[in-house]
Amino acid sequence: MTEPPAGPQASPIAQVPVRRLRNGEAREEIDQVAVEAPLELRFGGHSVVLLRTPGNDEELALGFLRSEGLLLGREDVVDLRRPQALAPPLTGNVLELELRGPERAYSERRFAANAGCGACGKASLAELEVLAAPITSDFQAPAELLASLPERLRTAQPWFDATGGLHAAGLFDASGMLLCAREDIGRHNAVDKLVGWALARPEIDLGRTIIAVSGRLGYEIAQKAVVAGVPIVVSVGAVSSLAVEIAQRFGLALAAFTKPGELNVFGRTGRVLRHAPSAAAAGRPAGR
Amino acid sequence: MTEPPAGPQASPIAQVPVRRLRNGEAREEIDQVAVEAPLELRFGGHSVVLLRTPGNDEELALGFLRSEGLLLGREDVVDLRRPQALAPPLTGNVLELELRGPERAYSERRFAANAGCGACGKASLAELEVLAAPITSDFQAPAELLASLPERLRTAQPWFDATGGLHAAGLFDASGMLLCAREDIGRHNAVDKLVGWALARPEIDLGRTIIAVSGRLGYEIAQKAVVAGVPIVVSVGAVSSLAVEIAQRFGLALAAFTKPGELNVFGRTGRVLRHAPSAAAAGRPAGR
Repeated sequence: MTEPPAGPQASPIAQVPVRRLRNGEAREEIDQVAVEAPLELRFGGHSVVLLRTPGNDEELALGFLRSEGLLLGREDVVDLRRPQALAPPLTGNVLELELRGPERAYSERRFAANAGCGACGKASLAELEVLAAPITSDFQAPAELLASLPERLRTAQPWFDATGGLHAAGLFDASGMLLCAREDIGRHNAVDKLVGWALARPEIDLGRTIIAVSGRLGYEIAQKAVVAGVPIVVSVGAVSSLAVEIAQRFGLALAAFTKPGELNVFGRTGRVLRHAPSAAAAGRPAGR
Repeated sequence: MTEPPAGPQASPIAQVPVRRLRNGEAREEIDQVAVEAPLELRFGGHSVVLLRTPGNDEELALGFLRSEGLLLGREDVVDLRRPQALAPPLTGNVLELELRGPERAYSERRFAANAGCGACGKASLAELEVLAAPITSDFQAPAELLASLPERLRTAQPWFDATGGLHAAGLFDASGMLLCAREDIGRHNAVDKLVGWALARPEIDLGRTIIAVSGRLGYEIAQKAVVAGVPIVVSVGAVSSLAVEIAQRFGLALAAFTKPGELNVFGRTGRVLRHAPSAAAAGRPAGR
């Protein structure tokens, strides 16, 4: 599933004219800004448009459809192609998918009534329960390791460095190693890109991974983590009440307001250990 | 249009249990977090759910429907009521509206196919042009005044002060006076609340106002400003390529990366003056 050659729409960064005003002086320059462009997903007679930063579009498509319950694994994707003969502004901004799987007919029907970005058009908690069961993994991680992740993620954000305008999400293993980092103007898209990346790597046990995000921790991020089965999410930002509610009900730990040596844990707080476990304590199931 | 008595869902701030971990020490406490809860709008046989922070729900409903082209003014709202006899979790989270107006039938049809938060389910630029014409106001404002607005907005964010987790938007007049400030977990909701507030005050000429937002400046914020006819938007954050494209096409000025004494202007840059105008220069039409 290699990506076709990138068209003119496919860059994550755009050059735009800017007037810089500073203490009464004005300079006309060219600035680099994050690209925000529609990606149209076509499948089973439906069309959904996501506003995203181009790059890793296939991962985004698969992760989004996984988060929405339209597929469970990579094997549910019969075909995924990028139509080549489209005129601008569609060039590079359309993906066609053919899906299969037991849930497809039901999910498509449900989806047709609720098309959107994953948050809107839903009654939230009630609909989330249709898609996901509580996380069964007993995975725990020490606070010190979790507190170090935002800084590690920060070193893997080249597009943010260029524009100052992109969110990032990183998938880490139990030892704190960065498995995958993705950037997008929408923080929910960055997480969907991780989920789509992992979908092509079934050897990764998501029940023993951690997602770190650059922004705030709201409904969408918590929902996507639960559906993917990732038991811990770390953020430097704040949590929302709905994210906490989801975390409590589905066994997710949210580590928010994270700084070096410090974090606040919501939801399944027992997943976060005060100290790195000794050999004897390792493997103990997660408490509340 | 006074708001009915607040139900248990109506608080913008929630108390949740938190485990604070700091340098190997753990404390169990109660934290204040921003509420994120669904608001269901029912109108003309449709139902749309917005994830929002409760408070100023009527303004949010009117501003959202205005931004979506479902109403043009307060007079298009025949009735707006909060059903009283709903069980949790619907208590306080449903608004029923009756709309009228020449655009209603067309817009509802269009809307039914594109329900969502204003960004998703759309082909973006093409659909925006259906809703809005370029801003005709010749309004200009000095850079120094614009650069001071984020700090003024910052003093009007009580919910952020309590939670650290809310966006804010402020509507300012030509002299830099704050007319209205609103907070929400979604920055687009905060702007819709401003638009809804202004809708009830037709004496305010939005063509001579400025919106300042606490976060980034993407598609949604630019689109809402254009539809409302507000010619300048100020942010401390970054702009997206699509926001710049909208600004260029619809005569909007975006002042981003704003710091004291410093800002970067995109789109209709002529709206931002290097210096406060002399009496002779005042009233000169906006350039480029």
